[in-house]
This record gives sequence, C-alpha cells and structure tokens, in this order.
Amino acid sequence: MKKYIETIKSLSDLKNYRSLYHKSRCNSPMPSILELTELMELLKAVLFPGFWGYSDIREDNIIYNIGASLQKIEKILNEQIKCGICFECDNEEMQTQSCEYNVTGITEKFIKYLPKIKELLSKDVIAAYNGDPAAKSYGETIFCYPSILALTHHRIAHELLNLGIALIPRIISEMAHSKTGIEIHPGAKIGEYFFIDHGTGVVIGETTIIGNNVRIYQGVTLGAKSFPLDENGKPIKGIPRHPIIEDNVIIYSNSTILGKIVIGQNSIIGGNQWVTEDVPPNTKLFKK
Amino acid sequence: MKKYIETIKSLSDLKNYRSLYHKSRCNSPMPSILELTELMELLKAVLFPGFWGYSDIREDNIIYNIGASLQKIEKILNEQIKCGICFECDNEEMQTQSCEYNVTGITEKFIKYLPKIKELLSKDVIAAYNGDPAAKSYGETIFCYPSILALTHHRIAHELLNLGIALIPRIISEMAHSKTGIEIHPGAKIGEYFFIDHGTGVVIGETTIIGNNVRIYQGVTLGAKSFPLDENGKPIKGIPRHPIIEDNVIIYSNSTILGKIVIGQNSIIGGNQWVTEDVPPNTKLFKK
Amino acid sequence: MKKYIETIKSLSDLKNYRSLYHKSRCNSPMPSILELTELMELLKAVLFPGFWGYSDIREDNIIYNIGASLQKIEKILNEQIKCGICFECDNEEMQTQSCEYNVTGITEKFIKYLPKIKELLSKDVIAAYNGDPAAKSYGETIFCYPSILALTHHRIAHELLNLGIALIPRIISEMAHSKTGIEIHPGAKIGEYFFIDHGTGVVIGETTIIGNNVRIYQGVTLGAKSFPLDENGKPIKGIPRHPIIEDNVIIYSNSTILGKIVIGQNSIIGGNQWVTEDVPPNTKLFKK
Amino acid sequence: MKKYIETIKSLSDLKNYRSLYHKSRCNSPMPSILELTELMELLKAVLFPGFWGYSDIREDNIIYNIGASLQKIEKILNEQIKCGICFECDNEEMQTQSCEYNVTGITEKFIKYLPKIKELLSKDVIAAYNGDPAAKSYGETIFCYPSILALTHHRIAHELLNLGIALIPRIISEMAHSKTGIEIHPGAKIGEYFFIDHGTGVVIGETTIIGNNVRIYQGVTLGAKSFPLDENGKPIKGIPRHPIIEDNVIIYSNSTILGKIVIGQNSIIGGNQWVTEDVPPNTKLFKK
Amino acid sequence: MKKYIETIKSLSDLKNYRSLYHKSRCNSPMPSILELTELMELLKAVLFPGFWGYSDIREDNIIYNIGASLQKIEKILNEQIKCGICFECDNEEMQTQSCEYNVTGITEKFIKYLPKIKELLSKDVIAAYNGDPAAKSYGETIFCYPSILALTHHRIAHELLNLGIALIPRIISEMAHSKTGIEIHPGAKIGEYFFIDHGTGVVIGETTIIGNNVRIYQGVTLGAKSFPLDENGKPIKGIPRHPIIEDNVIIYSNSTILGKIVIGQNSIIGGNQWVTEDVPPNTKLFKK
Amino acid sequence: MKKYIETIKSLSDLKNYRSLYHKSRCNSPMPSILELTELMELLKAVLFPGFWGYSDIREDNIIYNIGASLQKIEKILNEQIKCGICFECDNEEMQTQSCEYNVTGITEKFIKYLPKIKELLSKDVIAAYNGDPAAKSYGETIFCYPSILALTHHRIAHELLNLGIALIPRIISEMAHSKTGIEIHPGAKIGEYFFIDHGTGVVIGETTIIGNNVRIYQGVTLGAKSFPLDENGKPIKGIPRHPIIEDNVIIYSNSTILGKIVIGQNSIIGGNQWVTEDVPPNTKLFKK
Repeated sequence: MKKYIETIKSLSDLKNYRSLYHKSRCNSPMPSILELTELMELLKAVLFPGFWGYSDIREDNIIYNIGASLQKIEKILNEQIKCGICFECDNEEMQTQSCEYNVTGITEKFIKYLPKIKELLSKDVIAAYNGDPAAKSYGETIFCYPSILALTHHRIAHELLNLGIALIPRIISEMAHSKTGIEIHPGAKIGEYFFIDHGTGVVIGETTIIGNNVRIYQGVTLGAKSFPLDENGKPIKGIPRHPIIEDNVIIYSNSTILGKIVIGQNSIIGGNQWVTEDVPPNTKLFKK
Repeated sequence: MKKYIETIKSLSDLKNYRSLYHKSRCNSPMPSILELTELMELLKAVLFPGFWGYSDIREDNIIYNIGASLQKIEKILNEQIKCGICFECDNEEMQTQSCEYNVTGITEKFIKYLPKIKELLSKDVIAAYNGDPAAKSYGETIFCYPSILALTHHRIAHELLNLGIALIPRIISEMAHSKTGIEIHPGAKIGEYFFIDHGTGVVIGETTIIGNNVRIYQGVTLGAKSFPLDENGKPIKGIPRHPIIEDNVIIYSNSTILGKIVIGQNSIIGGNQWVTEDVPPNTKLFKK
Repeated sequence: MKKYIETIKSLSDLKNYRSLYHKSRCNSPMPSILELTELMELLKAVLFPGFWGYSDIREDNIIYNIGASLQKIEKILNEQIKCGICFECDNEEMQTQSCEYNVTGITEKFIKYLPKIKELLSKDVIAAYNGDPAAKSYGETIFCYPSILALTHHRIAHELLNLGIALIPRIISEMAHSKTGIEIHPGAKIGEYFFIDHGTGVVIGETTIIGNNVRIYQGVTLGAKSFPLDENGKPIKGIPRHPIIEDNVIIYSNSTILGKIVIGQNSIIGGNQWVTEDVPPNTKLFKK
Repeated sequence: MKKYIETIKSLSDLKNYRSLYHKSRCNSPMPSILELTELMELLKAVLFPGFWGYSDIREDNIIYNIGASLQKIEKILNEQIKCGICFECDNEEMQTQSCEYNVTGITEKFIKYLPKIKELLSKDVIAAYNGDPAAKSYGETIFCYPSILALTHHRIAHELLNLGIALIPRIISEMAHSKTGIEIHPGAKIGEYFFIDHGTGVVIGETTIIGNNVRIYQGVTLGAKSFPLDENGKPIKGIPRHPIIEDNVIIYSNSTILGKIVIGQNSIIGGNQWVTEDVPPNTKLFKK
Repeated sequence: MKKYIETIKSLSDLKNYRSLYHKSRCNSPMPSILELTELMELLKAVLFPGFWGYSDIREDNIIYNIGASLQKIEKILNEQIKCGICFECDNEEMQTQSCEYNVTGITEKFIKYLPKIKELLSKDVIAAYNGDPAAKSYGETIFCYPSILALTHHRIAHELLNLGIALIPRIISEMAHSKTGIEIHPGAKIGEYFFIDHGTGVVIGETTIIGNNVRIYQGVTLGAKSFPLDENGKPIKGIPRHPIIEDNVIIYSNSTILGKIVIGQNSIIGGNQWVTEDVPPNTKLFKK
Repeated sequence: MKKYIETIKSLSDLKNYRSLYHKSRCNSPMPSILELTELMELLKAVLFPGFWGYSDIREDNIIYNIGASLQKIEKILNEQIKCGICFECDNEEMQTQSCEYNVTGITEKFIKYLPKIKELLSKDVIAAYNGDPAAKSYGETIFCYPSILALTHHRIAHELLNLGIALIPRIISEMAHSKTGIEIHPGAKIGEYFFIDHGTGVVIGETTIIGNNVRIYQGVTLGAKSFPLDENGKPIKGIPRHPIIEDNVIIYSNSTILGKIVIGQNSIIGGNQWVTEDVPPNTKLFKK
C-alpha cells in the first residue's frame, strides 16, 4: 500500500472534489441505500403480505407479521428521514432538536397513510388484470407486473414527498426505475386504476398529472418540451412543464408527449406518436 | 406502536383489500420470490458451469457440482411448483395428495429436459457471437450478453409452461425482464440460434412464434394490435394475437410489429418501423 | 437422484456443448461475477464515499475507509484480472509467471488512476445537475441518477480496457446496463461533462467518440449502420463503425444515430430522429 | 480431483461405515443442527424478549414479536420433531401419515406449555440473583449467568422429552453444554428456584431428581456410581442410577455425588467431597 | 395460530413475569448481545491485527484497518454503553441528555486506553509462551491459548468497569467464559504476565487481587468462602471476599482457594488443594 | 476520529508490541480462523454426512456432496497450510516455490487419509454408545456427544501434525476445546475405541499415549508433572512428559495423572485420584 499513499490522500481530500462531498449540519450520517432497500422490502411485505417477505402468511398470523414489520419500518424511517433532511439542510442555524420533532411526526403520518396506499394499489392491481389479456389472476399481476412494482414505489414516494421530504422519495423512485425500466418522478400526481404495460423505457416527469383509468405502454414519455434558463444559464427548477393526462386515456408504446399540454379524456394516442400540443377529448391519434 | 393499532388492524384485515389477498386450498405457502431466485442461480450454474455459481469448475470436478446442484434444484422445484399450483387452484375439492403426485412428475420431466435446454442455449451463444462484431469470444457472450440471460430464463420458463404450470414461469420470465429490459412471455415459441442485441425495451408477446436464425435489436416490440373484449368489457384471455417471425429475419431497433401477422423468411425490417400487416418473404422494409 | 444419472452425465460432459466450455491455460478459475460485484461496490465507495458503502463518512475518518477499501480492491483486481487474462488467453506457451507480472502492473496503474476518474465523475455530476431542472442538489444526482451510475461503471471499464484487458471491463459495463438500461461499450471514448437523462434504452457502441458537454436522453442509440462480413460470412471485429458526437451536442429521446458519421458541434438532434449521415455544426434537426 | 476418485467412493460407500449411516424410514431428512440452533434463538427471544433476539422490545410491540416468533417456532418444531422421530424410528411398517398427526399434536402441546416454562425460569432468575452477591440485578443474571442459559435449554428439552420425543431434546441439551460447560440430561427432574453458580464442569445425569431451592457450584457431578451390564456385556439402558437431591440443599464446587442415593433436605455438602451414600437431612458434610 | 392466542397473550403480558421484564427510563433499547459480539470481534482485530479479523495485515496497510475498526468500535460502544446505563438506571429523574454526555466521555477514555491494554496483553503472551513447553511461538499462543482470549476479554471488561459501567463488562466477561471455560469477574485486579494453562473450570471472583508473574492451571477456583446475609436473608453485595495472590505464585490444577486470604509471594500450591487460610510467602503446599 | 490519531498510530506501530506482530517471509497472509472454521464444517460434513452440513443426504446423492465438499476442502487446505508454514517459517532463504510444492503434497496425503479417519471415528462412535447407558443410538452419539466432536477434531489435527505441519492442527484442536471443554494436544497418540464421557475439563497433553478401548470421564487430566528448564530458565520444548495409558483402562472423573508414567492395561482409576507413579496392569485404584 505504500505505493498508494498519494492516491489515498488524493481520494480522501474532500476539497479536491467539492461537488462530490457533503457535510451535514447536524453530524448525522448520510442516507443509506442499504437501509432504504430494507425499508422497501418491509413496506412491500406490509402492503402485499405473502407476495413479498415471509411467504407463509395466513389469516391467523398476519397481524403479528404486520405489527413486527411496522415496528422496523418506524425505526428505519425515523433514521433515514432524519439523514435525508440533514443531507439537504442549508440552514446553518437549524438544530437537531427541532429536526427530531418533525421526523417523528412525518413517520407517524406516513405509517397511518399506509392503508390508503394499499387501497390505491389494490385498484392498480385490478387495472393491470383488466388491461392485459395475458394476465391469469390478480395474484399474477402482483408477483410479475413491473407496473405494480413501480406504482408501489411511486405511491410510497409520492406520499413522503407530500409530507415535505425530498431526497428519500427520489431514491425510492429510482430503485423502481432500476428494476422495471419505468421512471416516475415522485412529484407526479397519478389517479386510480393506473396501468403501465411492459413498461421498459417509460418516463413520467415531475409535474405530470394523470387522471383515473389511464393505461400506457412501454417506451411512453410524459416529458418536458424544454425548460427556461435563469440569468446564469441554469435551468429554473420546479416549474410545471409536463403533460396532464385526463381520465380513461390510453397511450400506446413509444409515444412521446411533451410539455404542459392536456390529453383530453377518453382519447387514444397510437404508438410512436410525437405530441407537443393539446389533444381534445375523445380523440384517436394515429398519425403516420 | 399503540398509535398504530388501527393501522395494523386495517392492514391485517383481509376483507378490506379483496384483490390483494389469496387463500390457497391446500394450506400451502405462497410461491417465494426468494426461493425462485435461488432456483435460477442453481439452474444457471448447471447450464453454464463456472460462468455462474462456483467459478473454479474443471473437467474433474464438474460432475460433483452438477449433482449437488441438481439435488437442490429438485427440492426447490418440488416445493415451488406445489406452491404455484395451490396458488392458482380453483378446485375446492382438489386434494393435496393428488397435487403432490403431479408435482414430482413435473419436476422429473423438467430436470431430464435440462440437457436439451443447454443444447438450445449453446446455439444461442453461437448466434450472439456471430451477430455482433463487438463480441470477442463465446465466453464473453455468456458473461455479458443480456440476450443469453433472457433466453436462459425463457427456455426454462417455456418448458415449465409446456409441463402445465403457469405462474412460476411468469415470475421467472419477469426476473429476466427486470435484469435485462427484455420481456419475453413464457408462452412465446422461439426457434434455434436466436439473438437479441442490446435488448432494452424488447417485448415478445404470449402467442408470438419465432423461427430459426432470427435476430432482433433493442426496443423491438412483437405485440398485439388490439384485443377483443367479452360481453363484460373484459379482455378475452389466451387468443393468438402476436406475430409469426419466420426463419432468418432481422428486425432493427425500435421497430414495432403488431398483431397476428407473418414476417416472411429472410426479410429485413429496418429501424423505427411500424408494421401491422404481413410482410412477404425476402422483403427489405425501410419505410421513412 | 438415481433417475438423473444420465442427466448429470450429459450436463457434465464438456464435449457435448463445446461452445459453453472454457479451459484456461494456466489452471486459473474463471472470472467471478460475485467478486466483480464486490469490486464495484468497493470502487463506488471509494469514488463517492458515504453515498455508497459505509454511510457515516466524515472528514476525520475518510482516510481509513479509503485505505481499507483500496487494499481489498487491490486484492480482488489482481485475482480477477488474472482470471480474465487466462480466460481469454490463446497462447499455449504463455506461462503463469509472466501473467502475474503484468497483472500487478495493471492493478497498480489502475488504482493510481482512480483520482482522475473521480475528477471526471465530479464533472459528470455537475453536468447532471445543470442538465435537469428536477435535480435539487449535486448529492441527489449521485444518489439517484442512472447517468452517474452508468458513467461510474464506464469510466472504470474504459480505463481497464486502455490498460489492455478486455473481458472484465465488458462484464463491469453490462452490470451498469442491467441496473440502468444504459449500455455503454467500454471502448467508447466519452469527454467531460456528459449527461444521459432518464437513460433507459440508451446504447453507445464500441467505437463511438463523444466530445465535451454532450447531453443525450432515454432511448438514444449511437450504433453501427451495418458491419462488413469476412470471407466466411462472419462479421469483421473491431472496425470503427459508430458515430462521432462533437462538443455541446444535445440528442433528444429515442433518436437513432447510425454509422461512422459526425454530428457537428453545438447541434441539437430532436426526438425520434433517424440519422445516418453527417450533421454539420450548429444544426437543429427536427424532421417529422 | 481425479486423484481423489477412490477417496470419494470410499467416503460415499455407506456400507463401509455402517454405524455412521442412518436410513430414515419415511424418506425424511435428518434433524438439522442449524435449524435447531435457529429454533433455540427464537425460543429464547420468546422467553426473554429483549434479552435475546430483537433488543428494542417494549410494552406496545411485544405481542407482534411474540406472535411472529411463535409462528416460526411452530414451523421448525413440526419439521424437526418429524425428522427426529423418523431418525429414531425402528418400525418398518410405520407410515408418514400417522407420524405427521403426532407431530402436530406434540408441537401444539409444547407451545402451549411455554408460559409455564417462562414462569419456572423467572423463579430460576430470582434464585440466581439471591444466590450470588456479585449479581447486581435480575437482568444481569439473564444476560450473563450460565445457570439461566443452561436451565432455559433444560426446561425446554425436559418438556419435549415428556411429550415423548428423545433425540431433539438431547441435541438441545448438548447445545447448552457446549456454551456453558454445564451438562444436564433432559431426563433430569429439577424443582423450582434452582441455581448453578459458575457452572463449568457440572454434570447432572439422566435419572437425577432435584427438589426446590437447591444451589450447586462449578464442577459438581450428580452421576452414576456404576451401571449393570446385560448378558452381552453392554450397559442396560434407562435404569434409575443418579442421586435425589432434596429441597434447600447446597453442594459446593467440585463435589461428586454418585449413585441412586438421597441427599436429605437442608443439607450442605462442602467442596471437593466424594459422596456415594445417603446423607440425612440437615447434614453439613465437610470431610477432609 | 388461533389456538395460540392465549399463549401469545400470556407470554406478552409483562406483569406475569415481573422479574424477567425491564423498562428503561430513557426509552433506550436493551443492550444487544449481537452488537457486543461484533464489538469484541472488532476489538480483538485491533489488539491482535491479522490474528483476528482480516488475515492479510501488513506494515503498510495496518493503519487503515485500525482506523476503520476504531470508528465502528466508537459507534457500537456509544450505543451499547448508553443501553447498559439505561438498563441499570434507577433514577427516575435522570435525563437522556446527561447520560449521552457521560457515554461519549467513557467511550473516548476507553479507546485511548487500548494501547495500554495491548501492552498488557503482549506481556500475557510472553507469559504463556514461557509457561508452557508445548508452545512453539508467541503467535501460537495468540491463535490457540484460551488464556489469551480470556485475558483479552478481561482486560477490556476491567477497564470498562473502572470507567464506571457495570453490565456491559459482565456480558463481555461471560462471552469469554462460554468460549474458554474460564470465568473471570470484571472486578478482579490482575497484574502483569499472568498465565492460565488449559483453563477449563477456572473461576476468579469479583474481589480477587492477583500480582505479577502468576500462573494457574485448569479447574482452579479463587472464590468466596461464604457471604454474609443482610437482615432479609439476602446476600450483601460487593464486600471483599476473594483471595489475594501475590507475585510469582503458581497454583496447580483443580485447587480451590477460598475467602479473603493471602497466598504469599513465590508460593507454589499443588494440585487438588483446598485452601481457606493464609499461606506465607515461599511456601510449597502439597497436602495429601 | 481526530482525537484518536495518537491511539491509532500507537496501535499500528508494530515495533511497540514486538511479540504480537509477525512478518511472514513469503508475503503470505496469516492463517485465518474463519477459513479454518469453514474447513472443519466441510470436513465434518464429509465424515458424518447428514449429521453435519446438508441434512438431506441419501444413498443416491451422497457422492455429489462428498465430491463438491472435497473440492472446497482441497482449496482451503492448500491456502491455510501455506499460510501456516509461512507463519512459522524461520528460514530467510526459503522460497515460495518450494513451499508450494510441499503444500500440495501434504493436502493430497491428508485427503487420501480421510477414509481412515472415518473408520477410526466409526469405532469411537461404537465406544461412546457402549460406554454410556444413556445413549439410545449410534446416531445420538454423533449428534450430541462432545467425545465424538473432540475426537473428530483430534484425529484430523493429529494426522496434519504427522504430515509435518504444526500451527494449523493446534488451532483445530483448540476449536474443539472451546466447544467441548476437552483439550487434546494434536501430538497425543490415541488408540481405537476411545471414549470421553461428559468431557468438560479433560486435558490430554502433547506426548500422551493412549491404547485401545480406553474410557475417561470429565475433569481427567493426563498432564506433565513438571518440566525441565534450559540454561536461560525457559522450559525445554518437546520432551516426553505425559502418561502412557494402556489398553482397556478406565479413569473416572476429576482424576489427575501426571508425568511420563504408565497406567497398566485393564486398570481402573477411581474418581478424584492424584496419580504420579506407575500403576501396574489390572489395578483398581480408589484411594481416599
């Protein structure tokens, strides 16, 4: 190792690579991908008992498994939300004490919202079953459909974002992207009975709004047309710039919908379409 | 946890979320993703010894490794096939006894078919090497090509489906989709010397039939044009609705072939094509 | 197991499946995916301390973590590079002794190059932050952006390839493909401040050359138009056949750039474009 | 491995080493030390929640942890009791069916007896605290005293033996021996408030009977004087041959009490004594 | 599990088994055997680098390994000392804040004392090598001698006790007892160059004082003769009641030394002796 | 960690603690307790298939399990024997090359000797069953008797010592001591059908010789009376100094046999005896 002394020094010198380094205010560790992975395993086991986690769940043992899992979920969430808040924190005066208080409250609200997430996902399961002639049972869609996995991550991440935290939901969302090829920004608002068939290559942007009973296919992008730059030539963050997809819309594979436009209800967008302007309700768009 | 008592009760109440719950007839656990993952690791180590699993395989130790792996494969398959059958079972009169009998038979037939699967995959390896100028050796394609991984899962899943079971092959197939971005429904019939280059975004539907020496590229969809609904507005399951790709066809990236049409032998479909009608043999299709 | 004796024999008979078997010259094991996965975890923990690996990295403990990780990196690299060289080796006269010598030298050169890789990646982080209005901090791009993960693998793999080894970098590169849907061949030359947004479906071929400040989107292919066959009908390996993308180019989603062509500096290629000929500098290409 | 073919054959030939091989009647695997180790971890976590297993047990989460643990205990016990019965089974006509029935019943009785075991152990904890001036709290005796560990294993093993199974309790008992140096045969009958101080080298034989409030020290043997042989010169199994220790007896370190004799109540046996005859009540035995 | 509802309730009802339950004041988890086991692995790796932990320690990498281990030691110690203090705490007014302060200080003092512990242990290694003709090298005594393992635990536990904490050192001490059969209470004061040969069955009581260059053998007890009871018939805790062993004493196997007596310097106590009165210096005691 | 910089330096300075540091000649790592633990698990699984390791061993799968285990045994043994030889090596001129050659030969001889070890152990199993009226079956003695575990380690360690290596067998022997409380030096020569009942506290010294059909009980020491010192006051290593126990001897619990004396055949030594002179054949020694 003697020959690597300079290498080690260089790699350890935080000043050399300013952008890669982060110093948290409150001496908290950074968020941990490992812990968040464990968290998602526990959440999936609570939302779909038997499908994820311990496979021998029955009516008379489910309550103990849910309870034991929630207890671990509470612990990890408290820690990781705190790590996430500290990581993003810019306020040099902020104090650990006050953070702790918020964190406990956020965790509690989130856990109490889990039954609502479960209800939403049960509707997504029905949508998947109804939307694909190859689906043989509800259970098959939970076990095998990337749509259900991506939406499980999304509905969790979206609620965490609603509760005021930012980085952790992004990490959770990217975990689903890595496994499914479906990227949904936690900020996207998605209605009931949503189904993404096949899914690889789907991108749903931060300010997208999707109604009920919407179905989209692989390779569909709901993206931004362009984004305004500020006076320094940097993109202005957070401006609404993604589509609004109304109820009962179907978008076939590899179509690209760009910009803050509206796809009116009951419309069908064919495959490989490039759409950058509003589409009125009840339209069938199959341009060649 | 006192504050979560209602949450726990709600999440444990199986009546609240009917579609997410499953009660097996024969008191069997549900299929386990964890066990099936272990199964696939073992199968890959048996089909490509040294590439997967223990890396120090030689001529004089291979038989012990194959034997020890097959024994674990047999055990997991017996359990998981039974779990899968019970999960799908609708027959309230069915009895564990009779299931057990079938399971053992299916496992035995499957294991005895493994040499045939290995032979098919060895041809897919040759196809990958010949189909990509960047490939430096057969071994490189086994180590690195998503095509080989996806086809390993597919040829296993397809045979399990042929043996009469349904859910387990779908899970196995989705595992490959998650890792490669290539989705092949276990029902698809695929000939010899098949090669998918790059692969991300490829979708091959349930009733697709592919001949010998076919090569396709990333983003290619072999899908259904539409699907008929029954009187309740639900899709009718299981109807042939995907393309037939004849021998020696090449389909370039991001092309979409939809419906029960035939792409005639020796044809070449260019990139970004949208094809919904039969293509005669020996055609070169490069529409703009 | 008695019933499987023929199956075991068949699966163990290396002559049956010639293409799937490999016999190394120097009695070395084959490269191990497991070890290479561990290697990448260690390298990521050294390049982005705290983001990957142990999450409680601080100014006063970083040097011990870097040092302890480098020591393990050195050990695995020495072993795996040797396994890789032996796997590819055709020279029946080559001797273990001389291999060992080269391996140590390659490992040393690679480890000493790590600070340079870190510097390149710190610029890619800035490019990601500036390139996406949804990015809230540099840290978020390291935690969540497939672009950073793919480029971390690529810049490592590319340097290993430069040092004269071939198979190991390909495996490292495919690991990133599996997780991100972004496939970058280790041979591709990529400049500074590169950003791939969303990323799923991106393919960057072996002989691609990319300048500085380039940004591309999901589904973009930088591929080969076709490849010449030799007298046996096999593709000729290693010929330059992929695009040259000059500085400051942007290529929007799902566009396909094929062949050894040049996309001139400051050009913008719209989405869904099919480009097989040179594009002059400062062009905006938005064909319909 | 070629050079080891004869070694492998010899080690695999079950006829060569008859006594080391066992063939179960009902095709069940052998008992598994690994599974039984897991079982004991779970049982200890149920009997002393927080001391063993998950360390953050509180009033409002304990029920979920107990429930989730019992469910796993039930599963392992059912399997291992069955393995143990099959291992010991001599009846060539016995059928799996009837075994299964018994196993479930034994498991159920055992689990329902756990609260009684917990009550007995809580008294042993009090005895340890009162018996050692170095003990600072009840909790310390649970965390640190080999007496409590050995009695936890014993009271579990003794009850399993009472329920009619033999091998599994012996394995459980030997686990405690290995960790504490205290060997208690599962057959020994032990009253309430028993305490073994230090414990290393203690041996308590199969047919020993111990009253209430007994305290013994390290190196004490409660053994057999000799054992009658049958006509073949083999020891006759199962005859009562160990001491009866009545209430309130203390036996100091390294004393040996041999044979089916009675140590009368309230007696004190000094250290290093060799006792092979009855000791009347209220005796203080300090021979030199 | 329905049949176990009463069992679960009973096992979860903390009131039923008062002595087995503990409620910490500051809502801290209980000490964790698992964490303390990890702590001891790390401490052993720091005190005997290469012998314990990572086996490839060299002059040029040792500092990184020590540093990385100390960092984890600091984290676990802070947590576990806090858990231990809370577990033992009786002061209902005590506040978390003040505990935390103490904990950090104790951890810091302990870690800074580690070089002193290492120095003491290096002398114990020399004593073991010199005391046993079977020892072939210093290294062998570190790898194989229960004496070194027991003293490593003891010198750590003793220092922690000196720093004012009680339960954690007892747990650490019992860990060594379990592995070596040597029980040394953390309170015992032990001089330099101490050696316990073979060791099984050795007991060294809480208030024992041992000089320099002392050697004892298996089965030796340095215990209390009896202990005074308080008015409630409970033993009075903490009174000096164990022997003082002066410099250069040897005590052979299975001898028992009881009570607050002095074994004068340079004395040799033969095997199997029972000693309850002072022994003058330079005595050779071989009673029959 | 800044506050620990001096501590880290001190702990890393190998000169400070000369006796604790070791510098191997050939740049090999030190022997690894972890690897040797794995080795013993594999050896036990090969010697008692089903009892140790995978629990579902049957006639038709045993050969694959034995083969796969032997292959791992060979690998670990080669590495660890080399590490052990380098650790002990004093010859500064010795070269790696020559060591490697010896190591392979030792491993091969050892593995080929395994059937002989298995045969010896099968006789020890019979001795345990015949020697204890509490034993219900041969199998029970393999699962539960410390005697069998200690002899498994001993017969392995003794053979390794015979093959010329020293440190590794000592570590293997101490592993059994830790688990059983039985310490047998690898140098001890032990005949067939040996049985140690209960075992805690047994010590069998380096130059002990034990005949056939010998049975001993807990706490028995076969030790050295004293050992001659050299001119520097250090013990002279390796001189015969332990007892010879002839065929058919029984030695009851806690007896101590010291020095190079002979216990004649068919003798019985009672419990708690102190023997330092020859005992003629056929003696019954029950001194009080």
